[in-house]
This record gives sequence, C-alpha cells and structure tokens, in this order.
Amino acid sequence: MSEFSGTCVALSGGVGGAKLALGLSKTLAPEHLNVIVNTGDDFEHLGLTICPDLDTLTYTLAGLNNTETGWGRMGETWTFMDALKALGGEAWFQLGDGDLATHVERTRRLAAGESLSSVTAALTARLGIEVAITPMSDDAVRTYVDTADGALAFQHYFVRDQCAPVVTGFEFRGVDVATPSPAVLAALADPALGAVVICPSNPYISIDPVLAVPGLRAAIEAAAAPVIAVSPIVGGRAIKGPTTKMMVELGVTQSAASVARHYRGLIDGFVIDSEDEATGDEIRALGMDVLTTNTVMQSLEDRVSLAADVLEFATVLRSKPE
Amino acid sequence: MSEFSGTCVALSGGVGGAKLALGLSKTLAPEHLNVIVNTGDDFEHLGLTICPDLDTLTYTLAGLNNTETGWGRMGETWTFMDALKALGGEAWFQLGDGDLATHVERTRRLAAGESLSSVTAALTARLGIEVAITPMSDDAVRTYVDTADGALAFQHYFVRDQCAPVVTGFEFRGVDVATPSPAVLAALADPALGAVVICPSNPYISIDPVLAVPGLRAAIEAAAAPVIAVSPIVGGRAIKGPTTKMMVELGVTQSAASVARHYRGLIDGFVIDSEDEATGDEIRALGMDVLTTNTVMQSLEDRVSLAADVLEFATVLRSKPE
Repeated sequence: MSEFSGTCVALSGGVGGAKLALGLSKTLAPEHLNVIVNTGDDFEHLGLTICPDLDTLTYTLAGLNNTETGWGRMGETWTFMDALKALGGEAWFQLGDGDLATHVERTRRLAAGESLSSVTAALTARLGIEVAITPMSDDAVRTYVDTADGALAFQHYFVRDQCAPVVTGFEFRGVDVATPSPAVLAALADPALGAVVICPSNPYISIDPVLAVPGLRAAIEAAAAPVIAVSPIVGGRAIKGPTTKMMVELGVTQSAASVARHYRGLIDGFVIDSEDEATGDEIRALGMDVLTTNTVMQSLEDRVSLAADVLEFATVLRSKPE
Repeated sequence: MSEFSGTCVALSGGVGGAKLALGLSKTLAPEHLNVIVNTGDDFEHLGLTICPDLDTLTYTLAGLNNTETGWGRMGETWTFMDALKALGGEAWFQLGDGDLATHVERTRRLAAGESLSSVTAALTARLGIEVAITPMSDDAVRTYVDTADGALAFQHYFVRDQCAPVVTGFEFRGVDVATPSPAVLAALADPALGAVVICPSNPYISIDPVLAVPGLRAAIEAAAAPVIAVSPIVGGRAIKGPTTKMMVELGVTQSAASVARHYRGLIDGFVIDSEDEATGDEIRALGMDVLTTNTVMQSLEDRVSLAADVLEFATVLRSKPE
C-alpha cells in the first residue's frame, strides 16, 4: 500500500467538518493542507461581521475550542452578554467575551479594506495555525432558508428560531456575483493536489454554498485528484445539527446514500460508517467507490484515524485505472 | 436660610465631575437635574464609538462604577482584551468585557441613525438612571492636544502616551459646526432653572469643550440662574488627572485662583476647599462670590454634602441684590 502524497483541499462547514480538518492537520504537513470554509453562515450582527464556520475552524485548529460544550472557546466568559442584556440589546446570539475579540478585530480590518482571506490568514497566523484556512469567497454570500413562513436569514433560522421552521429550500444570496478566493483556486490548481475532501458537514447549508460559488465546482471537477466526501449521516441520523430534519422536510430519505446521491457527478469516492455497510452497494450503483470505516469522531484518535483512512482511500482511487 | 428650589444643570467631565453629579443626584429630585457631559474625549477605536465621560457618568449614577479602581465597571472581566492581544489587535486602550457592551450597543444605534442624545437616554434609562445625562452635542467634537511633538488625538495623549508630551494648547475639532444637544438648550432655558454648576473637572479638556459648542456658553450666560464652579484644584494639586501638569506647561500658576480666573465673566460664584481659604480674597477680586467648604469627595457623604453646599450657595446668590 503506497502512502498518500501531495496536497489536500478540504471543504468544510462548522463543527463536524472541523473535526476531520483537525484530523487532517495532524496527518499532513501544514503546507499540504488547505481548508476551504463555508461563509454562507456569516452575518452582520451588532455592527460586527461574524463568521461562525471560519471561527470554528480557527479555534479548533488553534486548540482553543471548548471541548466541554462542543462549540465556542475554552475559558470563555460572558460578561459582555450579561451587560448587553441589561442594556436591552439583541441577545439571541451568544457572543463570548473572547470570541468577541475575533469579530471586533475582523470587522475593523474589513472596514480598513482588507479581504476576508487576508484577515483570516492574519488572525490564524497569530494563533499559531500553520494550515491555510480560507473562506470560500471574499465576497459576501448569505444563506437564507426558505420556510413555510418565508425566507429567514440563516442565523435567524439556526440560532434564533432553533431550526423550528419547516424548510422548503435554500438561497445563497450574493453568490451569483461572488468569485472564489484566489487561494481556493490556487490550491485546486496545484499540480501536487492529491485529494479533495468534502468533510462530514451538512450538504445543504455547509457544502452547497461553497460549491455554488461560480467557478469553484468547475475547479474541483477539473482537478486531477480524486474527490471524496465523508457522510455526515450515520445510521440515518446526523451526528450534529439539523441535517436529517431538513431531509425529512425536503422529502429526501434520511440516509448516507441520500448524501452520496446529492454529490453524484462531483465525487469519486464516498466514505460511510461501518454501521451503514449494508448501503454500500446502493451507493456504488451511483457510480462511485465506497470506503466503509469508523466515521464517528469522538476522540482525537478518531479524527486522526478517519483522516488517514480518507487519504489512503484517495491514494487507492488515484492509482485506479480510469 | 431658604432651601434650594428649581432645577440644576451640571457641566461635567469624567471621574471628578461624576462624583459631584452623584452628590447632586442624591440631593435633587431626578427630574430637577440635567447633567451635560463633555464629549470631546470621545473617539473611534476598533470600529466602536467610545464616550468615556458619558460612560463614567452613566456607570457612576447607575451604581455600576468600580469603587476599587476608581474607573470602569464593577465586576468587570478582561477576556476580550486578552484575546485581542493574542490576535495582535490594538491593546493600548483597556476595554472591559462589560464596558464593551455599552460601546457595541451605542455604535450599533448610532449607525442605525439615532442621535447620541437619544442613545444615551435609552441606555441610561435601561440602567435605571432617572437623571437626564446629555452629551453636550450630538455632533462629533474631538479634542486634540497640541504638544511639542504635534497635535495628538485626546486618548492618544491621555491613555496611550500617559500625558507625557508637553502641552502647548488644545483644539476641539468639529466644534465650529457643532450645535448643542436640544436637551441642553431646553434645560438652560427652563424658567425653573435655579443653578448652573460647573463640576470640579479639568477646565481645559473637560469643561472648555462644552463651553466651545456654539451657542452653549451664551445660553448659560443668558440663564437667570447663578453659575457656580467648583475648583478641581485643592492646595495647588489636582485631585485627579493632569490638570496641574497642564497648568505648568501652559505657564499658569497651579492654584484654585487660576481656575476661577479661567471662568471669569461666566461664573457668579466659585467654590474652594477650606485648605485654600487664604486665596478667597484673590478670587473675590475677580468679581465673584466665594464659598469655602470641604471639596475633597472621598465618601458618598462628602459628595452629598458638597452638592448641598453648592446648591445652598446658589440660593444665596439668587437672593442677592444685583
């Protein structure tokens, strides 16, 4: 068995994607990993530009994430929120005191004319992250969730309304005039590219916005490297978040195979959990290879192990005759 | 001896002025006190509009001020600053986590089109303050300190450079096109006005910006009520801040009498500390009445006592034949 060589581009949403990205960062040399992050969740709140997925990746790869809550920063305090509530401010979105520094400093730099890519590179470097974390685009793309009650800005749907409204579809406002970040296209055009990994994130709201940026999907398709997606669905349930609730509301079967079908035409390989082994043939019938392994990442070892499995799968697919 | 009746307008800078304003608030019915606050110290920092004197008044009158440090909020945390430093952000101005809520909420409201007066009224009301705290103007006035090294924005001089540069003068940029807040003019035009009190604040950087707002000094002069200033200098020393250092650099004698001379033509009465009793005749010779009392406010009782003395002085001056 030959070892994985070359570079890897990973597409990621928030928490679930960050787990695999962390595993990949422990497996690859830092200059060989580029994490492309969804910015459709970004929003303007209290005058600040907040980028939840970029920040989840940043805190996770910097080792600053709160492992007890599964979100936010370790050692966080909440004095700001308490004071904001006392002033009658909008308090539905929890902003920790330390987290706030990221939003304030990012907003200040954006207002000074820096691109989101540049700001992200500077902030991640300050936190000692050597892996490139890149927003999918420097242009504002804002996900709206279409519901029976009308379109809701993503964070209103996700946080304020706690995913209660019934989903009928999604809009990625601004995506038509967005362009991929230069670093995204450079990473995908790298002749050394050995794998494109779609992390186990929500396909509708975490990965689709990335793929909707004009030219980005085509750049993935044009890459010589195999494209591999890891299922965010195990045993018919999402590890985290509203993925399966959305599937029900959209009339899609809650299964790993549905995710594979969603990515058909784009991916060469699909990674499912051992629990879903029985669905392997259904997925292979979609015209892709399947790797069955443990995809539930509870420990750091799980993250590293899955990353190694995915990269080995890429090596196998690369050596496979077309 | 008749008791003080009517309303009171107090002009104030930060900490020293807030002490007397608190005393006045404990002495008068809340609807009888209007505190007009210097906004020359205000500045834009990290994308936020920060109003140090308004906030000192607000925290003091809300009972939220930190009595141990003498500045900032009680129970403050500093997670934001620590995180900002880690990100390489500008860290010379200390922003506590709770304090930050005020700046973020104010900046958001200003950006939404509210006036600074309106924002201040809303925030102080939320904190249970019944006294009217009003910025001198809704227009941006920014104090610059002229020094041997050139003009410095006030907070750069005051906080970043810790008042080290030698002062040659002051500029209140934007004041020429500023107008007094409507509430300021209304308070000064109130037929029930019984006293205008200039709090023991720095005359050059806390009170002069207020008096420089076109029309504001004239409105004080036109008011029928006596105008009384309380000396911020006791025994040749400032209770707090760089007042006497500035006096030396400006070639002015460090004394209460110099402050009285500074306000000559505007004030009817001047309040000095018992320690400065010997200078009373020099000050009376400037054409004003003098009250000698304890002006050093260490306890809440000191604040209330001085407030009562000042209001009684106003009563005496009102009943005095012209």
